[in-house]
Amino acid sequence: MSTPATINGKEVFDLLRDDLAAIEREFGRDTVAGVEAITEIGEYLRGGGGKRIRPALLLLSSKLFNYQGRGAIRLGAVVEIIHTATLVHDDIIDEAQIRRGRPAANTQWGNSKCVLAGDWLYMQAFKIAVQERNFRILDTLIDLTQQMVEGELLQMEKLGKLISLDEHFDLIYRKTACLFSVCMRVGGILGGATREQEESLAQYGHASERKQIETVLQERAFDGVTHAEILEILEKYGSLEAANTRALRFAELARNAICSFPDSEIKRALLWAPEFVVAREK
Amino acid sequence: MSTPATINGKEVFDLLRDDLAAIEREFGRDTVAGVEAITEIGEYLRGGGGKRIRPALLLLSSKLFNYQGRGAIRLGAVVEIIHTATLVHDDIIDEAQIRRGRPAANTQWGNSKCVLAGDWLYMQAFKIAVQERNFRILDTLIDLTQQMVEGELLQMEKLGKLISLDEHFDLIYRKTACLFSVCMRVGGILGGATREQEESLAQYGHASERKQIETVLQERAFDGVTHAEILEILEKYGSLEAANTRALRFAELARNAICSFPDSEIKRALLWAPEFVVAREK
Repeated sequence: MSTPATINGKEVFDLLRDDLAAIEREFGRDTVAGVEAITEIGEYLRGGGGKRIRPALLLLSSKLFNYQGRGAIRLGAVVEIIHTATLVHDDIIDEAQIRRGRPAANTQWGNSKCVLAGDWLYMQAFKIAVQERNFRILDTLIDLTQQMVEGELLQMEKLGKLISLDEHFDLIYRKTACLFSVCMRVGGILGGATREQEESLAQYGHASERKQIETVLQERAFDGVTHAEILEILEKYGSLEAANTRALRFAELARNAICSFPDSEIKRALLWAPEFVVAREK
Repeated sequence: MSTPATINGKEVFDLLRDDLAAIEREFGRDTVAGVEAITEIGEYLRGGGGKRIRPALLLLSSKLFNYQGRGAIRLGAVVEIIHTATLVHDDIIDEAQIRRGRPAANTQWGNSKCVLAGDWLYMQAFKIAVQERNFRILDTLIDLTQQMVEGELLQMEKLGKLISLDEHFDLIYRKTACLFSVCMRVGGILGGATREQEESLAQYGHASERKQIETVLQERAFDGVTHAEILEILEKYGSLEAANTRALRFAELARNAICSFPDSEIKRALLWAPEFVVAREK
């Protein structure tokens, strides 16, 4: 798997550095509430870091169309806030002790405040998204959030049961790739992509889960019971290997999805992005 | 306090019967999800009844402008779904055992599924609301939801502390009147109200909390610890009486708020609505 020699991880990051910093500031402003507990929880979660892969994908996608507006900063913060809201609620559900190497928010503020903080963050994300005055973007973000929530519930329902490989991929899609895909799509919408281009970008986002599949499976296997159980089932029935094989096809799919775009620094960055995703984890 | 003799509770209900039935069907359709648990919880919550005061206010408000579209049915369902989502999350927070005379959803499905079902319901409400393709309505609904969530958190923060009468009214506003007010406002927006008319309607909705203040205080005093504690503080410091005095002014405010609208059956229904709210509770 060769990557163009002209761009590497540091260069991709340099390309996005200013915008990612702007998104960080926007995120900080957006999570200040009139109620102390929300601001505290928001601050805590934001301070926990995270790789900001989602905003990075959104930025790259919008830049593919030379988009220059403020929308990519706002919506970059929006996707990160949505992601954060899902994490707060997931931690309640998983009774998580640790998130990103620190005590999970629920262990610090209790479940009740975290339920409400998550609700507030979802609403805040949509409040900022509405400012864009773009219905397609709203449809996309709302649909995404429902798919993620349904994914969590499906996982709970499947717990301890035998699941098929398709069900496994559906879960992974809802839990991770769905949001990647939406980030790419939203960047495209901002940039004025045609419907066809939008679908390609969404497909790229979907495909860039390749590395994430492995990471998520590994991380969760250590962290939580739920994924460990899924892993156990998968291994027992030999489908983890099949999952890996399938996952390997994704990098190629991702590249194909954006091959029709004219050559540019951004395109080269996107060709490299699955590696970038992993590199930033270290 | 005289009410026009020409309209009574039954007549108000007759005016809205078909539309309320349509909203009930819409609500039923809207809460069918691809995931079994959500549909079940949604069905259970919808089956629990509730007075549908919120959709009724929205309908009356839209009819004041002779609005005939389908939007009032959809948005009537939306406000009831948002209300339902707040109830599910509130029950988790209050560790409620009973809701509307039946076991609370959290006692049947557990907190985790109820957190996710609440999230899903919020998103579903916005999904339907977005169909209206009206940004003012979205702004209004999102702002409302944040206010309600902040209200819950404020209440948790104030628990066991002395609160001022203003803080008490702020809590009541966020927990109840805020949604009434939004129902009136959204009905007005649908009907093409001027900004001034919209404000009057919102004020009416706010004011129609008068009876609700008493009811909520009474209900909660039996049900939950949280409000009982607030009541205790209020009684201890003599401000419950002041609260009641203030509450009594609301009916008059409500009437004043809509006095500028031309006389109609709907206007008479609204003049009677605070009574209607209470009558339907029996």
